[in-house]
Amino acid sequence: MDMTIGDFLLRRLQELGIRHLFGVPGDYNLTLLEQVEVMPDLRFIGNCNELNAAYAADGYARAQGFGAVLTTYGVGDLSALNGIAGAYAERVPVVMISGMPPLHAIIDRALMHHTLADGNYDNIMVAVRQFTVAQARITVENAAQEIDRVLQTCLRERRPVYLQLPSDLAYLHIEVPDTPLQLCEARSEPGQLQHVVAQLRERLAKASHPVVLVDIDVERFGLTDQVLELIERLELPFANLPPAKAMLPETHHLFLGTYAGAGSAPAVREAIEQADCVLSIGARFTDVSTALFSQKFQDGALIQLQPYAASMAKVHYNAVSMRQVLETLVQQPPLMQAAPRQVPPFSGPAAFRALPEHPLSQLRFWQRIAHLIRGDELIIAESGTSSAGLNGLRMPRGVTYLTQPIWGSIGYTLPALLGTLLAQPQRRQMLFIGDGSLQMTVQELSTILAHDLKPIIFLINNDGYTIERLILGENSSYNDINPWRYAQLPKVLDTRERARHFTVHTEDQLEVALIEAEACDTLVFIEVVMERMDAPESLKRFARLFAEFDYGLPALSQPTLAH
Amino acid sequence: MDMTIGDFLLRRLQELGIRHLFGVPGDYNLTLLEQVEVMPDLRFIGNCNELNAAYAADGYARAQGFGAVLTTYGVGDLSALNGIAGAYAERVPVVMISGMPPLHAIIDRALMHHTLADGNYDNIMVAVRQFTVAQARITVENAAQEIDRVLQTCLRERRPVYLQLPSDLAYLHIEVPDTPLQLCEARSEPGQLQHVVAQLRERLAKASHPVVLVDIDVERFGLTDQVLELIERLELPFANLPPAKAMLPETHHLFLGTYAGAGSAPAVREAIEQADCVLSIGARFTDVSTALFSQKFQDGALIQLQPYAASMAKVHYNAVSMRQVLETLVQQPPLMQAAPRQVPPFSGPAAFRALPEHPLSQLRFWQRIAHLIRGDELIIAESGTSSAGLNGLRMPRGVTYLTQPIWGSIGYTLPALLGTLLAQPQRRQMLFIGDGSLQMTVQELSTILAHDLKPIIFLINNDGYTIERLILGENSSYNDINPWRYAQLPKVLDTRERARHFTVHTEDQLEVALIEAEACDTLVFIEVVMERMDAPESLKRFARLFAEFDYGLPALSQPTLAH
Repeated sequence: MDMTIGDFLLRRLQELGIRHLFGVPGDYNLTLLEQVEVMPDLRFIGNCNELNAAYAADGYARAQGFGAVLTTYGVGDLSALNGIAGAYAERVPVVMISGMPPLHAIIDRALMHHTLADGNYDNIMVAVRQFTVAQARITVENAAQEIDRVLQTCLRERRPVYLQLPSDLAYLHIEVPDTPLQLCEARSEPGQLQHVVAQLRERLAKASHPVVLVDIDVERFGLTDQVLELIERLELPFANLPPAKAMLPETHHLFLGTYAGAGSAPAVREAIEQADCVLSIGARFTDVSTALFSQKFQDGALIQLQPYAASMAKVHYNAVSMRQVLETLVQQPPLMQAAPRQVPPFSGPAAFRALPEHPLSQLRFWQRIAHLIRGDELIIAESGTSSAGLNGLRMPRGVTYLTQPIWGSIGYTLPALLGTLLAQPQRRQMLFIGDGSLQMTVQELSTILAHDLKPIIFLINNDGYTIERLILGENSSYNDINPWRYAQLPKVLDTRERARHFTVHTEDQLEVALIEAEACDTLVFIEVVMERMDAPESLKRFARLFAEFDYGLPALSQPTLAH
Repeated sequence: MDMTIGDFLLRRLQELGIRHLFGVPGDYNLTLLEQVEVMPDLRFIGNCNELNAAYAADGYARAQGFGAVLTTYGVGDLSALNGIAGAYAERVPVVMISGMPPLHAIIDRALMHHTLADGNYDNIMVAVRQFTVAQARITVENAAQEIDRVLQTCLRERRPVYLQLPSDLAYLHIEVPDTPLQLCEARSEPGQLQHVVAQLRERLAKASHPVVLVDIDVERFGLTDQVLELIERLELPFANLPPAKAMLPETHHLFLGTYAGAGSAPAVREAIEQADCVLSIGARFTDVSTALFSQKFQDGALIQLQPYAASMAKVHYNAVSMRQVLETLVQQPPLMQAAPRQVPPFSGPAAFRALPEHPLSQLRFWQRIAHLIRGDELIIAESGTSSAGLNGLRMPRGVTYLTQPIWGSIGYTLPALLGTLLAQPQRRQMLFIGDGSLQMTVQELSTILAHDLKPIIFLINNDGYTIERLILGENSSYNDINPWRYAQLPKVLDTRERARHFTVHTEDQLEVALIEAEACDTLVFIEVVMERMDAPESLKRFARLFAEFDYGLPALSQPTLAH
């Protein structure tokens, strides 16, 4: 069928389930935007800047399956690149589309603005290629094929891809397939699949203490249900690595807890490190996940199942898909299984009663927040104090919990919240973010307000970069930030009075704010003021480990760690 | 002498005249920051995010000679990269220093946070290499040599460079040279220099209508005085290309005006295009400079003098330095010279009298601003309405005028202003920025306030992306932005009441604000509300040219261009 290149690209995005395209308009992408403008089921969401747009597309993709961001060549691409790299690290499928100078200018090596004015039109591609799994510069000759190839790779790898669309192409007509995009993941070599499944069954059947250790790539590949089914069918105790927090219900009778090497609770550590068969699914043993590589397993106990690979007993399999292994395994008859390790039942969060006029502490704040979680919400935690605090809570079935544990780019979460809100507008959503992080990307609060979205935002105001102070320089000026009147932000970054705001210092003030937050149908912004050196204990331990690992100079960190 | 690597690096920065280091603290750069903390003449300026830090370092370098920005590996480097690329395009010497994971982690290919968790430690380097002229990963073995090599290249090329400093190195002691950094530009091959100068003399002597055409790289290489001396000594009429606006005094009796191809005033166009010898100095004929490559010269008339090259009569010289050519040329006896073309004397800006209750128009606003310029200020103009408006004014001797005409990344100017203010705190400084641009980088207003800096900021609130509306989509929703209460920003992004703010709609309201701005000793923020489709005429013409060049579809732009 006959279609313009722009319309075809947008149709493909819609086939991926994309209903919102994030970005910033620029002089090289306006024709594509005109095409979006008249498209009924695709909406352009103008962000305040491109990094925020990339973050929003990342959040959207985590909640919706795929995300897309539209930039302008050079300035926009490079501004967005940190967000794209984060999506790569965390396996989030984001399509970055760059409106670039017209093909004739590229061919002429014309000295256009938004380039280095040296005729080089490859440098942006080289830079973006480092952080995407497929790329193409669209031409009239390759448009349909390359768009499909790049999007298929995005699906297969669950990682970002990059399309350059010269400005003079969007309105050109080409012949395109009228079939929908073929969306298929890489498939296993049948013999190898059969072998791996048989080996797995045997290993699990023989083990006296088998456990499952899950990581977030399970969710990225849409395999959460399959993994849970496997766990329940084989009655296998399971733990999550920190990035997979809340991916499986943490109130489940088989849930052991979170395994983070030496950073784990003793019972969890023992259960994993003493197990004679650890079936890890999607595991990436990063510094943050393992308290600096302190994970330990019994000799030969660790089995690794990765999206398109597996390894056990020192043998590596490169032609199996995690999806097919899990689906095949779960369909087989149940094994004779050793009795599962006893997991104590979860009795719910500790009772909490607000103390009047009592200044809020980190400990008490997170204990209170535990009672706020009903089991249907989407919760986003910024890296640092917020993620450390929430990581300590049990997350019941139904909670979606979103952090950026590998890339850890501060400021990510506020724009990501815009993305998750647009993906799931009916859902209750909460953000926990620190003051230093909020300052990074604050303007996106405006976009959240502009679209009448209604999250609860907890701003933890602890007067600067507390996580850095815990590592080094507790009182050094570089860890200070200029304080703002945070609670006034919703009134200034929007002209309508569409939000409620609170500044709370004490436990009873927090209660008042929370009661009102539950009652009102607006965005609620709660500034929670706490002491600058107060932090969850796990964050303090983590910071000490980092000071030693990064700097090899534990003495330096004494000022911070002494107290 | 014996010194730590960190202290040596910081000493070298100080030798470049750097007194302020911009950036964001992160877990891989804290030891270097501890070293800055105790250094008497170097101050760390914490920015709200890394892109803003790079922009600030760029502004600082334009006003001070060199700038530096400190980031954290991965997240910080990529966030800053758009600002670094801008510095490359515009020839601004900025040193980017990245605190990266410790060397032992790199060697182990450890799966650290702020990486893609795949053991690859080269991808950031590859990306940054595209936009810097020298790079190094510092080790104990190479530190002193590589730091010097990279900084020397920065000076020679006047372009950004990149240093990766693993976190465990800053405190290690090495032997370093006790001599200051050898700062020398590339020198000419003597024979070629002599030949080029002789040719130039001959060409200038023979010409009946010689002219000089200057571009901004003259200023980047510190040759403004030499060029002015040459012009005055030889009585050569001169024009500037748009990026060199105000570089030489525009009230000079030899100043012809700004040459921008078909975008020039008719008299300027004739003077340049009819000249039989055009000595261009540092010229880059970009799209924006030339109204889409419409420059024209008499056959063989154009001589190009570039920082390290020259060309005339189709011969290219690759071993001459612009500095040496100019310095040699100016020392030679004056030529017998044809009488200079008559340039009408500049009689000052047209008289202006504010009309009470008269809504502000772009035309009248810029006429009024002309009277504000005394000749000692530093003026920054955001790309778009602001630069188009200011480009129309004559800039007297003493004005420093700063835009980003090649890279054109919107939002650049507010953080750049932070940089220029710290570089020249005693100077009167003014920023002109639009609402869409301000939203990009707004948080850096906080840093300007935190350091008690006192510019006048004109926010031109014309309700969205007017420059884009002029190109395409006048009424399309993607060109809308969410309006803010802009004038309240200084009160919210800072907790002290350190600024005066105004919102003006009419000419007399503007007068009141300007009178107060002159009288008070604080930051002054003036929100100037104007019609969304009102714009300087030159911007409208430029937008029409772009719609045709970029999209090849002039019909599309009719809705905008009809009125």
